[in-house]
Amino acid sequence: MNEQRAKTLLQNVRQGKTSPQAALRQLKSLDTHNLDFARVDGHRSLRKGFPEVIYCEGKSPVQVAKIAGKILQHNDNLLATRAGKETYRAVKRAFPKARYHEAARAITVTRKPIPKRTGIIAILCAGTTDIPVAEEAAVTAEIMGNRVKRFYDVGVAGLHRLLAVNEELLTANVLIVIAGMEGALPSVVGGLVDKPVIAVPTSVGYGASFGGIAALLAMLNSCASGITVVNINNGFGAGYAASLINQLAQ
Amino acid sequence: MNEQRAKTLLQNVRQGKTSPQAALRQLKSLDTHNLDFARVDGHRSLRKGFPEVIYCEGKSPVQVAKIAGKILQHNDNLLATRAGKETYRAVKRAFPKARYHEAARAITVTRKPIPKRTGIIAILCAGTTDIPVAEEAAVTAEIMGNRVKRFYDVGVAGLHRLLAVNEELLTANVLIVIAGMEGALPSVVGGLVDKPVIAVPTSVGYGASFGGIAALLAMLNSCASGITVVNINNGFGAGYAASLINQLAQ
Amino acid sequence: MNEQRAKTLLQNVRQGKTSPQAALRQLKSLDTHNLDFARVDGHRSLRKGFPEVIYCEGKSPVQVAKIAGKILQHNDNLLATRAGKETYRAVKRAFPKARYHEAARAITVTRKPIPKRTGIIAILCAGTTDIPVAEEAAVTAEIMGNRVKRFYDVGVAGLHRLLAVNEELLTANVLIVIAGMEGALPSVVGGLVDKPVIAVPTSVGYGASFGGIAALLAMLNSCASGITVVNINNGFGAGYAASLINQLAQ
Amino acid sequence: MNEQRAKTLLQNVRQGKTSPQAALRQLKSLDTHNLDFARVDGHRSLRKGFPEVIYCEGKSPVQVAKIAGKILQHNDNLLATRAGKETYRAVKRAFPKARYHEAARAITVTRKPIPKRTGIIAILCAGTTDIPVAEEAAVTAEIMGNRVKRFYDVGVAGLHRLLAVNEELLTANVLIVIAGMEGALPSVVGGLVDKPVIAVPTSVGYGASFGGIAALLAMLNSCASGITVVNINNGFGAGYAASLINQLAQ
Amino acid sequence: MNEQRAKTLLQNVRQGKTSPQAALRQLKSLDTHNLDFARVDGHRSLRKGFPEVIYCEGKSPVQVAKIAGKILQHNDNLLATRAGKETYRAVKRAFPKARYHEAARAITVTRKPIPKRTGIIAILCAGTTDIPVAEEAAVTAEIMGNRVKRFYDVGVAGLHRLLAVNEELLTANVLIVIAGMEGALPSVVGGLVDKPVIAVPTSVGYGASFGGIAALLAMLNSCASGITVVNINNGFGAGYAASLINQLAQ
Amino acid sequence: MNEQRAKTLLQNVRQGKTSPQAALRQLKSLDTHNLDFARVDGHRSLRKGFPEVIYCEGKSPVQVAKIAGKILQHNDNLLATRAGKETYRAVKRAFPKARYHEAARAITVTRKPIPKRTGIIAILCAGTTDIPVAEEAAVTAEIMGNRVKRFYDVGVAGLHRLLAVNEELLTANVLIVIAGMEGALPSVVGGLVDKPVIAVPTSVGYGASFGGIAALLAMLNSCASGITVVNINNGFGAGYAASLINQLAQ
Amino acid sequence: MNEQRAKTLLQNVRQGKTSPQAALRQLKSLDTHNLDFARVDGHRSLRKGFPEVIYCEGKSPVQVAKIAGKILQHNDNLLATRAGKETYRAVKRAFPKARYHEAARAITVTRKPIPKRTGIIAILCAGTTDIPVAEEAAVTAEIMGNRVKRFYDVGVAGLHRLLAVNEELLTANVLIVIAGMEGALPSVVGGLVDKPVIAVPTSVGYGASFGGIAALLAMLNSCASGITVVNINNGFGAGYAASLINQLAQ
Amino acid sequence: MNEQRAKTLLQNVRQGKTSPQAALRQLKSLDTHNLDFARVDGHRSLRKGFPEVIYCEGKSPVQVAKIAGKILQHNDNLLATRAGKETYRAVKRAFPKARYHEAARAITVTRKPIPKRTGIIAILCAGTTDIPVAEEAAVTAEIMGNRVKRFYDVGVAGLHRLLAVNEELLTANVLIVIAGMEGALPSVVGGLVDKPVIAVPTSVGYGASFGGIAALLAMLNSCASGITVVNINNGFGAGYAASLINQLAQ
Repeated sequence: MNEQRAKTLLQNVRQGKTSPQAALRQLKSLDTHNLDFARVDGHRSLRKGFPEVIYCEGKSPVQVAKIAGKILQHNDNLLATRAGKETYRAVKRAFPKARYHEAARAITVTRKPIPKRTGIIAILCAGTTDIPVAEEAAVTAEIMGNRVKRFYDVGVAGLHRLLAVNEELLTANVLIVIAGMEGALPSVVGGLVDKPVIAVPTSVGYGASFGGIAALLAMLNSCASGITVVNINNGFGAGYAASLINQLAQ
Repeated sequence: MNEQRAKTLLQNVRQGKTSPQAALRQLKSLDTHNLDFARVDGHRSLRKGFPEVIYCEGKSPVQVAKIAGKILQHNDNLLATRAGKETYRAVKRAFPKARYHEAARAITVTRKPIPKRTGIIAILCAGTTDIPVAEEAAVTAEIMGNRVKRFYDVGVAGLHRLLAVNEELLTANVLIVIAGMEGALPSVVGGLVDKPVIAVPTSVGYGASFGGIAALLAMLNSCASGITVVNINNGFGAGYAASLINQLAQ
Repeated sequence: MNEQRAKTLLQNVRQGKTSPQAALRQLKSLDTHNLDFARVDGHRSLRKGFPEVIYCEGKSPVQVAKIAGKILQHNDNLLATRAGKETYRAVKRAFPKARYHEAARAITVTRKPIPKRTGIIAILCAGTTDIPVAEEAAVTAEIMGNRVKRFYDVGVAGLHRLLAVNEELLTANVLIVIAGMEGALPSVVGGLVDKPVIAVPTSVGYGASFGGIAALLAMLNSCASGITVVNINNGFGAGYAASLINQLAQ
Repeated sequence: MNEQRAKTLLQNVRQGKTSPQAALRQLKSLDTHNLDFARVDGHRSLRKGFPEVIYCEGKSPVQVAKIAGKILQHNDNLLATRAGKETYRAVKRAFPKARYHEAARAITVTRKPIPKRTGIIAILCAGTTDIPVAEEAAVTAEIMGNRVKRFYDVGVAGLHRLLAVNEELLTANVLIVIAGMEGALPSVVGGLVDKPVIAVPTSVGYGASFGGIAALLAMLNSCASGITVVNINNGFGAGYAASLINQLAQ
Repeated sequence: MNEQRAKTLLQNVRQGKTSPQAALRQLKSLDTHNLDFARVDGHRSLRKGFPEVIYCEGKSPVQVAKIAGKILQHNDNLLATRAGKETYRAVKRAFPKARYHEAARAITVTRKPIPKRTGIIAILCAGTTDIPVAEEAAVTAEIMGNRVKRFYDVGVAGLHRLLAVNEELLTANVLIVIAGMEGALPSVVGGLVDKPVIAVPTSVGYGASFGGIAALLAMLNSCASGITVVNINNGFGAGYAASLINQLAQ
Repeated sequence: MNEQRAKTLLQNVRQGKTSPQAALRQLKSLDTHNLDFARVDGHRSLRKGFPEVIYCEGKSPVQVAKIAGKILQHNDNLLATRAGKETYRAVKRAFPKARYHEAARAITVTRKPIPKRTGIIAILCAGTTDIPVAEEAAVTAEIMGNRVKRFYDVGVAGLHRLLAVNEELLTANVLIVIAGMEGALPSVVGGLVDKPVIAVPTSVGYGASFGGIAALLAMLNSCASGITVVNINNGFGAGYAASLINQLAQ
Repeated sequence: MNEQRAKTLLQNVRQGKTSPQAALRQLKSLDTHNLDFARVDGHRSLRKGFPEVIYCEGKSPVQVAKIAGKILQHNDNLLATRAGKETYRAVKRAFPKARYHEAARAITVTRKPIPKRTGIIAILCAGTTDIPVAEEAAVTAEIMGNRVKRFYDVGVAGLHRLLAVNEELLTANVLIVIAGMEGALPSVVGGLVDKPVIAVPTSVGYGASFGGIAALLAMLNSCASGITVVNINNGFGAGYAASLINQLAQ
Repeated sequence: MNEQRAKTLLQNVRQGKTSPQAALRQLKSLDTHNLDFARVDGHRSLRKGFPEVIYCEGKSPVQVAKIAGKILQHNDNLLATRAGKETYRAVKRAFPKARYHEAARAITVTRKPIPKRTGIIAILCAGTTDIPVAEEAAVTAEIMGNRVKRFYDVGVAGLHRLLAVNEELLTANVLIVIAGMEGALPSVVGGLVDKPVIAVPTSVGYGASFGGIAALLAMLNSCASGITVVNINNGFGAGYAASLINQLAQ
């Protein structure tokens, strides 16, 4: 959508010819910026509530930096996931405000302070080695305007560690529960709370964990209600979905 | 928890000896009714916001009827899923208000009108043969107090069918998107809306669909953001999670 | 080994020509009864501490009855698993003391009272539909001379059901923990007790439970220590191994 | 077939002793050049319409160069796929006209200008990281005499990117549609066009994408008609088949 | 699109207000007939060149008959696949011209003679038990206006059976090659011809054929060029794609 | 090849115009009898040493009887495997000498006494339920002219049963070793003998035996040398290969 | 639990206010030390009989050293598994008594002599390459106070190697049997002894061993009774469970 | 068995006290040399006809050299497979006659000329990249006293390459047929010859070849008779089994 059409649309809205709702829906459409190797979806923030997020795996640092530049032409903030340090440096060069979240392997650029919602997203993980996935979820949720509480290393083999934080869990609007190996934690948490639980299997484990399949299957077959699942190690996806859910609570 | 203890607790609350929050948390605990072959979780409605749901597969009609009886001692309404007609008749005999939802293979007993939330849950399915799963989701969501809009047979091979209902989809708080075969529908819907999408793979298909694995994997790997997934054919799980999410919007 | 050779051996023992240990080892050997379609291992009770157990799946009632006859020539008691009612009737005709355990689908013949060990085997299962597997384990453990305590329908989605029996669990020498779906129960139990836990996955579930694979993988990947696993639905194997373990405690 | 026999055959054709059809069929046969480690199929260009293509994976640069030499004895042009730079240099040394297509990891030698068909092959890919596979398809199609139009990064999560090029897609004779992750793009494209669609799954993704299995299964189960599938990352196979199809349109 | 709008459009075309191309594209759009349980895609024949085909598996005879009725309101001919005899009778009652192809388990209704293309589609299958899949492909190709030549039971274990028909194969525009078990036939055929080959794995076999997976994998990994693959037992898909390809040859 | 041509050929041989070797090779070729649904390979007995064997699964009794008729036009004996009783009756009607091997589910027709080789094929199976597969192997080996010794129910859990027949095993030229469940028997036998061992996995077992996959994998990974493997339950294939091997010993 | 509370509890026990059993159960509870990235379960040695064991995979040397420090604040001894040499050095720096078991890749710290039980744990492995897993089991069992006898390279392909040690095996209370490839060893051993056997599949093998799946499946499907299984390469888990079992024998 | 006992045994044979058969069987037994990390099976050459073969994967060069030394104490020749160059150098140092077969990655030591059988083993492979597996088979067969004929790069995509050597194939006693990708070659060869065929799948391929699974499944499901299969890339196993078979032909 070019400027002219956008202006006309907004004047129509001001003059009452078009209702704001109708206008908003029209804006949620079309328009991409073709970079040859990528078509940046400039209006995604209108349609989805957040600008396009760059998944860096398999893209060169130069490609990421170019896509970042195009996104930041139209948006205030940026999130790039699965980013190595070299990619971070390429983005940093162009956008000095870029920040690297090492545990999460994520880059954020925040040029405008993000107002925080009051509702809380709780992020639990079963073990120390699940933390990178948990942090990817946390960074995602935070840049999308959510308050996050972290509960790490609360796996079911030492149940008292989980029961000790039970009260705190009940204050969250939505819970992200992360586990590798047998992936049992979401089932136990799901039985304790009355809020949506997003389960994230991780590739933590060996042998018959099959790179996270064991945990994935366990979560899909959970006997507790209210649990939905994302891909193995997909901290970003969990953080994003949790944010969409938490947004409904406002 | 028997009536006596509950009364004492509530009097303590009225007299200010116990805060309502503390009392509510106390109520969200313990107490099961041991039927020998089952331990009915009588207070689940306090802890999870809805009484225990009976999964009928592998239970005899007599067992289901007994469990139903125990649940309805403490609750107004009941949901039983994956129920055959014989099971329905066994429940109907004891509870004449029982109703059978044939497409969904579900039994409901509604002894008290259920107040409806204003927010809408949209349920889409890709093809005619996915309807049983969609109906299980719908029946679940409805008995939990939600308004449901159905959009059936809107698979991606005829994209205009989906685009034709695009505006309506944007009015929902949460969307349940159901598909078998290649399971592509949630990805397309997820790209059009800014609300949480719960994807449900179905076992519809043949050959390399492997009883729903193809659709399940597609949904877990969706390139659209905001999508979470439940087990193959798990309409109930999707309806339940959607209800927990929709509840946040009130 | 025929009676004559056995007598000679025992006389040698009495006369001090052969030590009892040496004699016992000799007895733990050779000798099968060839029924054409089966070679009955008549001396297994010496070698393994319990006579051969008949796995009935894929054998005709006539075959089972013939094998049973051969075993009972040399032993007091008998266990046959995975037996249908027709097979039971064939055995009953020959051995009127035969008893059918319907839930377990097992046949036992007890011609001599079995002395019970003092140690206890606890058998837990997650849901009502897991009971047949639990009963197969229980019948096996009981005919091998063990006391069994049953804790059924204590799955992790309602954790208080499990915590309510925690004290009782601590009194067992060995625990058999049975679950389908996500198979999380052994991990939670394993974290609570300091005794060996035998985990049994069941085929209870649907979709991505893949006939028990999800539960099997979860149990193999348990983060709790002291857990070992048997085949899907293998109640017999769990009961047998538990008995061997409990026997060490005497 | 040596030169002498070929000449005799052709003279027979000129003199009407042999029909051209019969001669052509005779030529489409036998004859290989045994290099000890490889039997080069020198007459493949007669039988299949294009000389043997070298798949370089697992062959040493020296081996590739020798096979290339043998092929170029009998043919004007050459295609070698999955070639590293070292292999390229070995071929370049012997054939200075060799050209390296970096993104495609392919080597071509074009010693005679290739006449282009009028029909168009459209190549679409879902994301930036799918481009190497797309380029392998493009290079293959081009050296076989086809015009190619590229549409990269048009994945279904931003449907408007695809709809924006819809008109252009309708002008192609055959479409190659490439996607990793959930592999949904071919289904959507297949629903929009009335030409054959060749779907190529890629190994782009992580976790439950299982190196391209998720996309492969999705494509095999597509609900759209007219879609056929090649192996994961098999850009070459798609380009080759598309060329055979496009050739029919002349 | 109702008749009125269609007429207006065509008048605009006649009067030169709208170009035929533009009009055709407009017709290739929107418009579905909502039957509640199905949204019939009435204009698919404009967009895809053939009306919607009914996949009967999982639909009741009544549903199929209703969908058939809606399709035949707007089209001359009909194809329904995976149809049992009961479904056939339901369609026959409404459309006496319906014909049942028993081997193919397909229903066709042909109310207007179908003009045949000159190009030939060859259909080969490896064994007698693959014939149902071959016939589904043949019926599909025929109702879409193609001439079909059948070569059944020409599997690779008796290569001379295949070589005996080699000359005939060379006359086809496109070949559908069907095999179960080890699925080797397409590779051998693909090496003999210079036309596109569509490979169809079947579920014929046992043990490690895994319901057709062995054949599917073999075909996806074929060392011959120009081969694409469809789902296990998907005779329809192969016939449909072959028709789209053969259509280009006119 | 009709009788006339065969006679001419043989006369040429007698007159020294054709060498016997050359004639034999000519006979090992071409010629099939097209039954429309099957192309019977009439000369297979020349090429492979035994006439075509009918695999009955998926063929109707009428089809089997017709194929049998065609084979017996050119051969003395016949083998048909995986045959139900109805199929047997159809063959019996046409060929009263037909015999049904119930355990093996095989039909044989022996019109000419089969000379027996002196070498022995030993067939071992682990349990009673493996017998049908063992009998299929035995019937196949016997009709192909081999002496067979059966050793049934000698599984590794009672090793003395196997060791008791060890000496007898050493007298065989080739051993077929059949087992389901964990498939360990071939490894143990392979370590005891210096003759080729053909391992046959069976689908006997449950749960994680996955229909014979566990046994198949075990056999493929055997640490003993000299073991080769056939498909799950493929008694026929084992008997056939064993016969080809035993034939070399003459 | 801090010292003060522990003292009070013990005084109550001494004064008879609390029974020792009740006190012990109270001690078996609560209390974790939150290290931010890990919640160390300080009282696990009371609850499980052995302090928390550190699984080093995926943890940095610094993290392991910090966790080790926290554990050794409350316990005399320490076990860390899957530890590289760098991790060992980090622990060694803080605890000079640390010892590295190279074959087992384990670290132990033994600050107080460990009293040994009289019962023996036998550890068998099939081949030389299984030794690292066997040693992990041995180190685990030894630090938990068990006597271990090792029998390495006794695989079933040379059965006499196993039979030669048969008598010695009969003296063990529990046997750990380790094998890769076809994983047959536990079945053979299980048939010879009347004690519990813990089977450990290893990833030794190639091709269709699938990283240990072949051995894992074989062990789960063992026809011998009394066998339970742990995860692929899980020497630690086997040693731990064996210790819990051996402990019952005292 | 030490020399003394062997001499006594042989004298008994010469003096007629022991029959040669009985003596041979006695020699085929017991006796291992325990190297701590390996139990060398010194008498395997009596029992199996060839001394123990060293599988080097996962063993250190020092371990291999020690095992080689022990084997060569009792045998003239040696075979070690999957050996890297470093391992070769370690063996070479101790046994200067050691020879490294680079393509096969095998070490042989031949201290006594090996008499060759007259029968021929044909080794075929489909492509250049399968040669290492073919060479492992060839080296194995040759050191075991067989004549080998190699036919490399004769895959089914260029069938004339195979048909050109058909006559030569008919002269072999046994054929080893090696292929990756779709693994079709053994089926085609199996249909042409009347001798046993040993099929070897290789891991050559990519994507859906799954490291050789596609080829393995194809071979297990071959429609040709007389084919048996070994593990993926198991050239050694094929060579060994072929030698046992060829030995029968003498």
